[in-house]
Amino acid sequence: MKILPDSLDRITQQFSKFPGIGRKTAQRMAFQLIEWDRDAVKQLGDVIIQSTEKLSQCSVCNLITEADPCPVCRDTRRDDALLCIVEDSKDVVALEETSRFNGKYHILGGVLSPLEGVGPDQLNIKNLMERLNDTEEVIIAMNPSVEGETTSLYLARLLQDRNIRITRLARGIPSGGDLEYIDGVTLGRALDERHEMK
Amino acid sequence: MKILPDSLDRITQQFSKFPGIGRKTAQRMAFQLIEWDRDAVKQLGDVIIQSTEKLSQCSVCNLITEADPCPVCRDTRRDDALLCIVEDSKDVVALEETSRFNGKYHILGGVLSPLEGVGPDQLNIKNLMERLNDTEEVIIAMNPSVEGETTSLYLARLLQDRNIRITRLARGIPSGGDLEYIDGVTLGRALDERHEMK
Repeated sequence: MKILPDSLDRITQQFSKFPGIGRKTAQRMAFQLIEWDRDAVKQLGDVIIQSTEKLSQCSVCNLITEADPCPVCRDTRRDDALLCIVEDSKDVVALEETSRFNGKYHILGGVLSPLEGVGPDQLNIKNLMERLNDTEEVIIAMNPSVEGETTSLYLARLLQDRNIRITRLARGIPSGGDLEYIDGVTLGRALDERHEMK
Repeated sequence: MKILPDSLDRITQQFSKFPGIGRKTAQRMAFQLIEWDRDAVKQLGDVIIQSTEKLSQCSVCNLITEADPCPVCRDTRRDDALLCIVEDSKDVVALEETSRFNGKYHILGGVLSPLEGVGPDQLNIKNLMERLNDTEEVIIAMNPSVEGETTSLYLARLLQDRNIRITRLARGIPSGGDLEYIDGVTLGRALDERHEMK
């Protein structure tokens, strides 16, 4: 016997469309909605539709933005000669939080992944190549994954003939934590790249 | 510097309102929305608003439903003399999936929890007491938590003067799994309630 009403299933189905939200979580969210007051539910639906409509990608760096070009690209106090290449907009947030970078960004929109059919044409590489005229240094800041590594090497090779300094984020042991719990690859890398204490 | 646009924050904020959805997950969901096509986003928003509007609680058993009374209460093939009391609608789904129960349900809408200000008046106890005329057996099927236990005892005491058989779900070791991984309380209870093999 079917116990739960179709409307609930429809809501569950919608929430299940988000990767990372499983059926159980989606159903729990649907159940919670019923307990919200009607205005809050309407607000949720409206914000989803209206706010998403306002969002697009910066035509220069592909950062998610309401205005084009985005605030970072418009900011004249930032150093145009320094360009940091990242996978997605969330990486920009993480890097900005360090307060150590004052250049511009370029969002690739993913990493090379032949298995998932992502080649160079699926990434924002074409408009990267078109904006390098004033660039003196490119920092390749991919995530430390196999695909990130492949993409870093691909980009480094692609840029090698230009008169640009190509750098990447340092690898080593993270701050905090305990040597005994750090994985072997990270620790091995930290050993290989050890340097003199000054 | 504020990197992400306000529209994205607004969506994130809305998703964060669901208990169990943290800020990071909410933001990931907001980012995913941008990649959906506009029609899919509109559908999500519309389903949330319209489907939630259709849902209410059964006036008899408090099950979440589109029609009142709910399909379970309307079903004449079900045994009116047998009533199973549960915390919420999801528990009804779980019990129905066993195909072992053919009575009616009553959804309490929670458990007694003095710390969270939930007393008998906040639960659907009044309309429970009003529907017991034909009832011969009440199965108390609270979750096996401290609050569930308290609520079970409260209900059992409340019903004791009526000429009704009061039962509860059996406690013991769950099917599958391994004795060595079962918690001590469960195992202790299974020992206490051991019975003859026939």
